[in-house]
Amino acid sequence: MRSGGGARVWDADGNCYVDLMCSYGPILLGHQHPAVEQAARAQAALADCQNGPGPVMVDLAELLVDTVQHADWAMFAKNGTDATTMCCTIARAQTGRKRILAARGAYHGSAPWCTPRPGGTTPEDRANLGYYTFNDLASVRAAAEQAGDDLAAVLVSPFRHDAGYDQELVDPAFARGLRELCDAAGAALILDDVRCGFRLHLGSSWEPVGVAPDLSAWSKAIANGHPLAAVLGNDRFRDGARSIFVTGSFWFSAVPMAAAIATIGALRQEGAIEAMEHAGTVIRDGILSQAKSWSLEVNYTGPVQMPYLTFAGDSDHALAGLFAAEAIRRGAYIHPRHNWFVSAALTDDDIAMVLAATDEAFGAVRKQSTAS
Amino acid sequence: MRSGGGARVWDADGNCYVDLMCSYGPILLGHQHPAVEQAARAQAALADCQNGPGPVMVDLAELLVDTVQHADWAMFAKNGTDATTMCCTIARAQTGRKRILAARGAYHGSAPWCTPRPGGTTPEDRANLGYYTFNDLASVRAAAEQAGDDLAAVLVSPFRHDAGYDQELVDPAFARGLRELCDAAGAALILDDVRCGFRLHLGSSWEPVGVAPDLSAWSKAIANGHPLAAVLGNDRFRDGARSIFVTGSFWFSAVPMAAAIATIGALRQEGAIEAMEHAGTVIRDGILSQAKSWSLEVNYTGPVQMPYLTFAGDSDHALAGLFAAEAIRRGAYIHPRHNWFVSAALTDDDIAMVLAATDEAFGAVRKQSTAS
Repeated sequence: MRSGGGARVWDADGNCYVDLMCSYGPILLGHQHPAVEQAARAQAALADCQNGPGPVMVDLAELLVDTVQHADWAMFAKNGTDATTMCCTIARAQTGRKRILAARGAYHGSAPWCTPRPGGTTPEDRANLGYYTFNDLASVRAAAEQAGDDLAAVLVSPFRHDAGYDQELVDPAFARGLRELCDAAGAALILDDVRCGFRLHLGSSWEPVGVAPDLSAWSKAIANGHPLAAVLGNDRFRDGARSIFVTGSFWFSAVPMAAAIATIGALRQEGAIEAMEHAGTVIRDGILSQAKSWSLEVNYTGPVQMPYLTFAGDSDHALAGLFAAEAIRRGAYIHPRHNWFVSAALTDDDIAMVLAATDEAFGAVRKQSTAS
Repeated sequence: MRSGGGARVWDADGNCYVDLMCSYGPILLGHQHPAVEQAARAQAALADCQNGPGPVMVDLAELLVDTVQHADWAMFAKNGTDATTMCCTIARAQTGRKRILAARGAYHGSAPWCTPRPGGTTPEDRANLGYYTFNDLASVRAAAEQAGDDLAAVLVSPFRHDAGYDQELVDPAFARGLRELCDAAGAALILDDVRCGFRLHLGSSWEPVGVAPDLSAWSKAIANGHPLAAVLGNDRFRDGARSIFVTGSFWFSAVPMAAAIATIGALRQEGAIEAMEHAGTVIRDGILSQAKSWSLEVNYTGPVQMPYLTFAGDSDHALAGLFAAEAIRRGAYIHPRHNWFVSAALTDDDIAMVLAATDEAFGAVRKQSTAS
């Protein structure tokens, strides 16, 4: 990719696209957001990677604690995987236990303990994990029972967004059940908000559900594309967080922190979450109406800001692949096996360009389906 | 820390220091290096974190392969820990074996398998590691024998730079012995060049020793403070590298890659490694002569670009702590428990300021030693 601005991106050959992938999540306010880039440039003119953190780290920690209900403290890192791994380490340090439960098929990063393709990893990397089914409380209870008195944490995504599958919103009763189970067991409830954080809600993605995690992992969009990750936690897990040794050469760099502060400010000032919800709704309604007009049976799942489209019976993603390729050729940058991301920068023109592209892409799928 | 320029840094209270820590390694050419920052700004005006890598990733991969003798390919990441972990995963994927040998006390990052303080980690995180003593080939052979036919790799630092200990240069016979042992066993020799890379040599730090690793881990200084890590490898391990799944939201961001290209260019054009060697030699000679004049017995170890100072008999680092505190108060930013880093930006004035500070700091240590 060569460049970007607002909701548009350009590839190395000069082709222009309306961006519905947002760099797989990091872009929230659009590419080259003026206030974010201005804050980043101003900080870069002073310092980025130094012998210690800048004053901006304190400012950002305080802003995050003010913005996210369950957070009493913040720690910073670079990758989403750093943040999910730190949450597990903190939970183990605090509880003195080892077992962590995660949903089968959920993506929590690409370290050996969680990478979806285990080539080059060892069975020992996952020896202390147990698995449950998302939205199935009985399966969590069974996995917790197996863990016995060794249950350190339950790790969960705000909704089910496993790559290549129809997405599934969380059942509020499931979220509340996890909270009760963790409380009863003295285990940590860890929310992996890396992919969703600040796209669904200006706070933890489970605040609208009314369930507070003990620890949450953040990255991707919190600095609108600048490299940053964070762990937020409550006072109950403060000692555990204090006790672990984790660091990285660039974890305390000031530029992404200045960008994060500007991002959170712009999210609030621009009503960006409502803007994403609006754009996402128009795109969803348009696509569903197009699918109907082409007599194609589709599933359009997940929150409208992070939708995913599948075709009925398309288990090998052949139709999804064709649809995405045709849409991309016509200027709508989407993905056949990964959820899309809607930014707050989409204009009515951008949305019209997306829907013109998807309509013709549906036509190509219709032709292919009829032919085969 | 508030800001920096060249070899000087300023803290939040406005105090100025000559920087001998270089952000724990990332700063090589000095803070705010004009060519590096200009390249970063130019790239940032186009794009940073996008749906795919920019053309600059190809340029950087080719430049690294041209610059580092053993490298036939490059992969990118964000943390030094990402790079060391990826090397282990690639070695395991390629060999189909699990066991990796590392030197006792060596620092290879802060993931659960390698963090020096194991709070919150599990025994299983290190189940497939074996340990040897740096520069002791017999201890490697013993650990390899224990691994039997399960030896995937030997992981080693260019020299022994364990925090808080006198540093130890590599015995070339030890390096050659590791190479032979790995060849005989069909295991990978992994060089962890995260801390030393491009500070000792414009290529792998073992090129002057004449020993080529199969895989090497890089980060810290390769983009003069911009967040980037890399794994370089030879053709024998290409399939293993291809087969693993690792990724991160910011791993393909273009700005640090543009900064890395400018860094490597400036290293060459400015003769930066020779400049660091020269400055490091002047500082070493000055400090050793000062210690003598104060009748203090010290060890000044490691390459002159990455020196470390200890006081004889100072096992609790009390004298080192006093020395560092007094030097810092007088404007020489050093560390009592971690090796220092010399940048190419040090001027004669900077060096004079360092030596004025260390002379008075030795005086304080002398006073303390005499009093106790």
